Amino acid sequence: MSKKPLILVTNDDGIAAPGLRTLIEVMSALGDVVVVAPDSPQSAMGHAITVNSTLFVEKVVVDKVNQLEYSCSGTPADCVKLAVDQILDRRPDLCVSGINHGSNSSINVIYSGTMSAAIEAGIEGIPSIGFSLLDYSWNANFEPTKPFVKSIAENVLKEGLPKDVVLNVNIPNLPKEELKGIKICRQARANWEEEFDKRKNPQGRVYYWLTGKFVNLDHGEDTDEWALQNGYVSVVPVQFDLTAHHCIQNLNTWNFEY
Amino acid sequence: MSKKPLILVTNDDGIAAPGLRTLIEVMSALGDVVVVAPDSPQSAMGHAITVNSTLFVEKVVVDKVNQLEYSCSGTPADCVKLAVDQILDRRPDLCVSGINHGSNSSINVIYSGTMSAAIEAGIEGIPSIGFSLLDYSWNANFEPTKPFVKSIAENVLKEGLPKDVVLNVNIPNLPKEELKGIKICRQARANWEEEFDKRKNPQGRVYYWLTGKFVNLDHGEDTDEWALQNGYVSVVPVQFDLTAHHCIQNLNTWNFEY
Repeated sequence: MSKKPLILVTNDDGIAAPGLRTLIEVMSALGDVVVVAPDSPQSAMGHAITVNSTLFVEKVVVDKVNQLEYSCSGTPADCVKLAVDQILDRRPDLCVSGINHGSNSSINVIYSGTMSAAIEAGIEGIPSIGFSLLDYSWNANFEPTKPFVKSIAENVLKEGLPKDVVLNVNIPNLPKEELKGIKICRQARANWEEEFDKRKNPQGRVYYWLTGKFVNLDHGEDTDEWALQNGYVSVVPVQFDLTAHHCIQNLNTWNFEY
Repeated sequence: MSKKPLILVTNDDGIAAPGLRTLIEVMSALGDVVVVAPDSPQSAMGHAITVNSTLFVEKVVVDKVNQLEYSCSGTPADCVKLAVDQILDRRPDLCVSGINHGSNSSINVIYSGTMSAAIEAGIEGIPSIGFSLLDYSWNANFEPTKPFVKSIAENVLKEGLPKDVVLNVNIPNLPKEELKGIKICRQARANWEEEFDKRKNPQGRVYYWLTGKFVNLDHGEDTDEWALQNGYVSVVPVQFDLTAHHCIQNLNTWNFEY
């Protein structure tokens, strides 16, 4: 049996995405790689799982390298569940998701398919990282991301991660020489201001495209947004206990009559 | 202009669901109700939003009561975005989502379409509550939930909610006389152990149904699972800052070489 770590690689842009190919390449230097990724793009899927339809999985060959690859009809979270329960013959030592084509910083973590895969693995107790590059284009330049992706993954393999915590890593879209380093950050308090683009279809029926403007009113220099705007790779530790523990005491003063 | 509070009602089981009808009935006693709900069931959609396809909205009449109702082709989070940006002529004073047919306690909060709508409203700064009944059936008995739903919504209308916090309310499937009261809780640390049901289709191709077993190893009496098993309505304050603040100091000791 191999002594190399087993690394599960997935994403939300689909199995053919260049960002996934970059992640496979970097991870192949660190361990044995198995890929289980969606057969089509799944962006903005949040933490969706497939409970009302069937899931298909195909073993596929995408490039000429050694890793095993599986293409799955489901969401990123489905891919992780299927990998762990049905495809892998042992528990992975690490799960990495991405590299996403586009930012998952700040509030985007909750809409993100990339992060849903990482969080799903975290729920299953697997050390896990989501990576995103701040460039939405299919032909984004992933070359400068490689040393950072490698260094962060190496640290997680060596140190492990605190219980019930996964990492959300975002990388500015800059040439290598302008990337200043890695910063551990908190999630900025920002949100999207919706701007629906209202149109009529050829039959005269109104429809909408969801668009929006990202608004960050959080000027803290300890945030992921600050780091990214200043040339740093941001690393936010993310938890899936959503309890607002600080509010429990106050809510216990409420008077419920029924 | 009406002085009654404006209440946005949505869900993830779709506009015809009995749980939504119950929520509309209870909210109509507290304010002016506008319904914007998915045109079809959207369970387990997580915080998905529709960015790669069009959204349709129809004004509909479902029953003979006074509320305005809109049916939307998108996800629960889409419904909230469309309501706030395009449909409502003023900001709602409260957003309620549900009553879900089935539990959204513990880790289920992150898979939940019901809670994604509530969280989306929370991100937009609207006091917001997700309600779920622990009965998956379409013909679930929502009658016993009514006084609790009303009391919790009244409290939120009166007191407001702490900034960036929404409520996740789950209600045991019990007759009224066996419901013991309301407990403020933390989210239990539980998860689903996947059990994929592997089958072959008529053409011999393998496919899977996702099933699973809910495993709760968290025996704390301050959890939502404990409350629900002991006949209490559970109220968990939920936040959407996912930063694991307690880990930042430790991660800052890591040595990144690149």
